[in-house]
Amino acid sequence: MKEAVPERTIRLVLAYDGTEFHGWQRQPGLRTVQGEVERAARSVFGRCVPVTASGRTDAGVHALGQSVHFVVRTRLDAATIARAVDAYLPEDVAVRAAAEERAGFHARRDARRKSYVYHFLVDSARDPLWRRYTYFVRRPLDLAAMRAAAAALVGRRDFRSFVKGPPPGGDAVRHLMALRVLRWRRGVRLVATADGFLQHQVRALAGALLLAGRGRLDPDDVERILAAKDRRMAPPALPARGLLLWRVDY
Amino acid sequence: MKEAVPERTIRLVLAYDGTEFHGWQRQPGLRTVQGEVERAARSVFGRCVPVTASGRTDAGVHALGQSVHFVVRTRLDAATIARAVDAYLPEDVAVRAAAEERAGFHARRDARRKSYVYHFLVDSARDPLWRRYTYFVRRPLDLAAMRAAAAALVGRRDFRSFVKGPPPGGDAVRHLMALRVLRWRRGVRLVATADGFLQHQVRALAGALLLAGRGRLDPDDVERILAAKDRRMAPPALPARGLLLWRVDY
Repeated sequence: MKEAVPERTIRLVLAYDGTEFHGWQRQPGLRTVQGEVERAARSVFGRCVPVTASGRTDAGVHALGQSVHFVVRTRLDAATIARAVDAYLPEDVAVRAAAEERAGFHARRDARRKSYVYHFLVDSARDPLWRRYTYFVRRPLDLAAMRAAAAALVGRRDFRSFVKGPPPGGDAVRHLMALRVLRWRRGVRLVATADGFLQHQVRALAGALLLAGRGRLDPDDVERILAAKDRRMAPPALPARGLLLWRVDY
Repeated sequence: MKEAVPERTIRLVLAYDGTEFHGWQRQPGLRTVQGEVERAARSVFGRCVPVTASGRTDAGVHALGQSVHFVVRTRLDAATIARAVDAYLPEDVAVRAAAEERAGFHARRDARRKSYVYHFLVDSARDPLWRRYTYFVRRPLDLAAMRAAAAALVGRRDFRSFVKGPPPGGDAVRHLMALRVLRWRRGVRLVATADGFLQHQVRALAGALLLAGRGRLDPDDVERILAAKDRRMAPPALPARGLLLWRVDY
């Protein structure tokens, strides 16, 4: 008797350069990451395989550690699937890792924690080689002031003032576990870790920390902005190019 | 009496992402770095200002420290010119620095030494965020073997085996002062310094060192290739994307 082909739940860790994508989510007539990954999966498996991400990323946002899953009946193991899907992907998306998960695993619902990075390039002149992945700032930033503002944002808070549009289910409370302000070789890097993020939240947090770094926002201002629960009270969100979905923990 | 407007020789240090350029040199109907810089200069000065580089870079080659000069009658000082030209440049070219030079200074003829960098991304999976600036290598490279091969290339040598087409004036002798093989965070970096380079030379040298790093070329092979003075004897040139004109010294 021939053995049945097993049904497998596969998780892939994806990296992508978001510059030339209209975000993660499949949209008719537009180039999206989901569209490219599903096209590659169709080439590998010969049929449509819907792919679910840990969350959508907006147009222009990059990823090093986006996690996605799909369910497929196949004899191929996870490593082989990873290589095969990767071979069909365009240059600006790659499979970084793969694993077989238990049946029922869900890339979005099972995500316990996500970390995003926002990169500031701090320099007296523009650097074209970093323009796609950083937000350019000409003057040095005050890291101590940024850290003070960051400390006022961390915790289980209502982030309504930092979300674009109405939050899902009307609930803008998220647990921001960490918001670190670090130096890197070319400037300043923010690392935000939470149980979940709202749309434009990291970019709005980065906008607030940028103001703090310029001496125009202190921890009391942060408290006032949070208490207002009004998007118009918070500084504008910074451009997508500086933002990177760094990792998702399960 | 009104003072005459002084004639100034201005040197600019340019950075560019070569990906979307057909190289440095102006070409009708094609997007080139020279074309963009001359267009910006025309916008600043209101007339055509020919711009001369330390040397052409090929299509796809990047720069952090390309030097160029032009002569212009203006009351603006070098720093003001730098800001003005930069403001008219597209995102993928930038003015990094500027200086006024003595009359007669020439960006190509007065260059004493140039350094190019070639970046290998060494990783088990592709990284889309580095794809534009690196050559991807899946397996670790043997740095000791690369350094041994590099040592055999350094010196005043006839590099005919490493040049594309006939060398200018029939002379392929150049002084390769250094060819360093360094680790960087994401792989291996070559730094080549010479009194001048021939077309495709650094990419052909990188091709040879890549073979060495894979255990397929040793210092004796290098000597044989140099002695042959025949392009067909040397390994193929690697892609432009990994190459960066790092600095030019005067």
